[in-house]
Amino acid sequence: MASENSACKVVLASAIARNLLREVSESLERLQRSPLLIGFLANDDPAARKYAEWTQRTCKENQPGSNYSVDDPSGVIYRLAEVDREELENRLVEANNDRAIDGIIVYYPIFNNRQDQYLQQIPDITKDVEGLSHKYIFKLYHNERYLDQSQTQKCILPCTPLAIVKILDYLGTYNNILPFGNRLFGRTVTVVNRSETVGRPLAAMLANDGALVYSIDVTGIQQFSRGEGIKKKMHEVIERDNMDLADCLKVSDVVISGVPGEAFALPTAHLKEGAVCVNFSTEKVQLGGRSEVYS
Amino acid sequence: MASENSACKVVLASAIARNLLREVSESLERLQRSPLLIGFLANDDPAARKYAEWTQRTCKENQPGSNYSVDDPSGVIYRLAEVDREELENRLVEANNDRAIDGIIVYYPIFNNRQDQYLQQIPDITKDVEGLSHKYIFKLYHNERYLDQSQTQKCILPCTPLAIVKILDYLGTYNNILPFGNRLFGRTVTVVNRSETVGRPLAAMLANDGALVYSIDVTGIQQFSRGEGIKKKMHEVIERDNMDLADCLKVSDVVISGVPGEAFALPTAHLKEGAVCVNFSTEKVQLGGRSEVYS
Repeated sequence: MASENSACKVVLASAIARNLLREVSESLERLQRSPLLIGFLANDDPAARKYAEWTQRTCKENQPGSNYSVDDPSGVIYRLAEVDREELENRLVEANNDRAIDGIIVYYPIFNNRQDQYLQQIPDITKDVEGLSHKYIFKLYHNERYLDQSQTQKCILPCTPLAIVKILDYLGTYNNILPFGNRLFGRTVTVVNRSETVGRPLAAMLANDGALVYSIDVTGIQQFSRGEGIKKKMHEVIERDNMDLADCLKVSDVVISGVPGEAFALPTAHLKEGAVCVNFSTEKVQLGGRSEVYS
Repeated sequence: MASENSACKVVLASAIARNLLREVSESLERLQRSPLLIGFLANDDPAARKYAEWTQRTCKENQPGSNYSVDDPSGVIYRLAEVDREELENRLVEANNDRAIDGIIVYYPIFNNRQDQYLQQIPDITKDVEGLSHKYIFKLYHNERYLDQSQTQKCILPCTPLAIVKILDYLGTYNNILPFGNRLFGRTVTVVNRSETVGRPLAAMLANDGALVYSIDVTGIQQFSRGEGIKKKMHEVIERDNMDLADCLKVSDVVISGVPGEAFALPTAHLKEGAVCVNFSTEKVQLGGRSEVYS
């Protein structure tokens, strides 16, 4: 177990992003045109506005034919639409039907209740850059990576779980000598958070990639895995009423945490030596170990 | 305004159900076979079990070819499957693929969080007897009554809002001399509840049928209507920050309430003379007027 004072290497997200941004540039160069992304802001939430502004800054307006580079990787034309929340649904339907629009992003919350889950299903699956369409999420859980049989259209994965997968890949948690799709075989991961937007899809994605995952929230511990020898096609979930948080941390190579505040801070004394720790909470909740990433 | 002591005619649901059960019998006779409905129970919730038992009692097992009657209207073969909640999703996929199964009903809550909304999208739309598929709900809000262009497949509507529509039809709120689809023209309705399962779809259905609807919940009052002269194809929603509950009740021909307890009981003094009042709360919350239905 790691002592409270053990060395901890902190990895910055910008270093991890560099290779990914290069991939985006290369894809855009192949595309030979600037796709149009429309963002819908229909609330007064400061965090939503910040996210919208961040999208705008990232997608600097580029004219088609300009040179993309790592420093200016996007080439995506971004248009922010500020709309009344009662108008949002109709505007989404219009955007679905507008052939000039390639992608749609909505800054939630809108109504901050279950009506938001209704709205998440409105953007057409071909324009749903956030991967919120039920079909994408269904395929994620069922470990189906493509929309089509001929495997030409990769499924869109939700951004935060995907970002964490990319972080783990950068940190060497994925074992590249194993076949694609099984590269977390032998790894044990604890995910403290089981929200429908991050924790549950993340646990499923990691288990589908071969890991043994302990998914923890206030209601208890669930084990996600593809079974002995990762023989199953997709993960199965087993309730682990006999385990507690310390049991999970002691055996985990990776600990991922998205907790709502210091009250839920993880006891670092239970971490394994060399454990990779990722905190996706918006707060800098204490979480120690050998490596630590703030995304 | 109605005095606290004004006469109140209470209508029992069984009287309203009689004609509907006859319609079911006639449809089943035309079908010439007994459809198979499968119910999935994956929790220990006593209310869910009661609902499952009620479905079972209603759908008495009938062999194909038996005579259906008003007294025995169902003719639907019902099978209850008690499953582990971790198995439910796979069992739903199997039921989708099982050609012997005609309809699927799930007794919620399962996980009692947003995972339940994920699960609601799993049953195939052709077997979704509860009308929870996003496509059905989208069509409900957009006032599209059929799944197909040729108008052969009617959309499934969620059961509680549909039951309330049937009650209002029985009570003469729908004006049969008007064209179908506009029969609530001139009626004002207040719906106190804006949940995604009952209050919001109900407000939309009534407004789509031509009514002016005030939809009230703790966050405020919204007006659902098809505009002046019901010229719009579907309802629009306008926030009514300048109105309060009493303003709505004073002008409403129909008041529908689904409130969580006595603390939210409606002040009957504001009701119009002759107002039709429907309470769909599980509690017998005080709600007076000329007619009152407990469903």
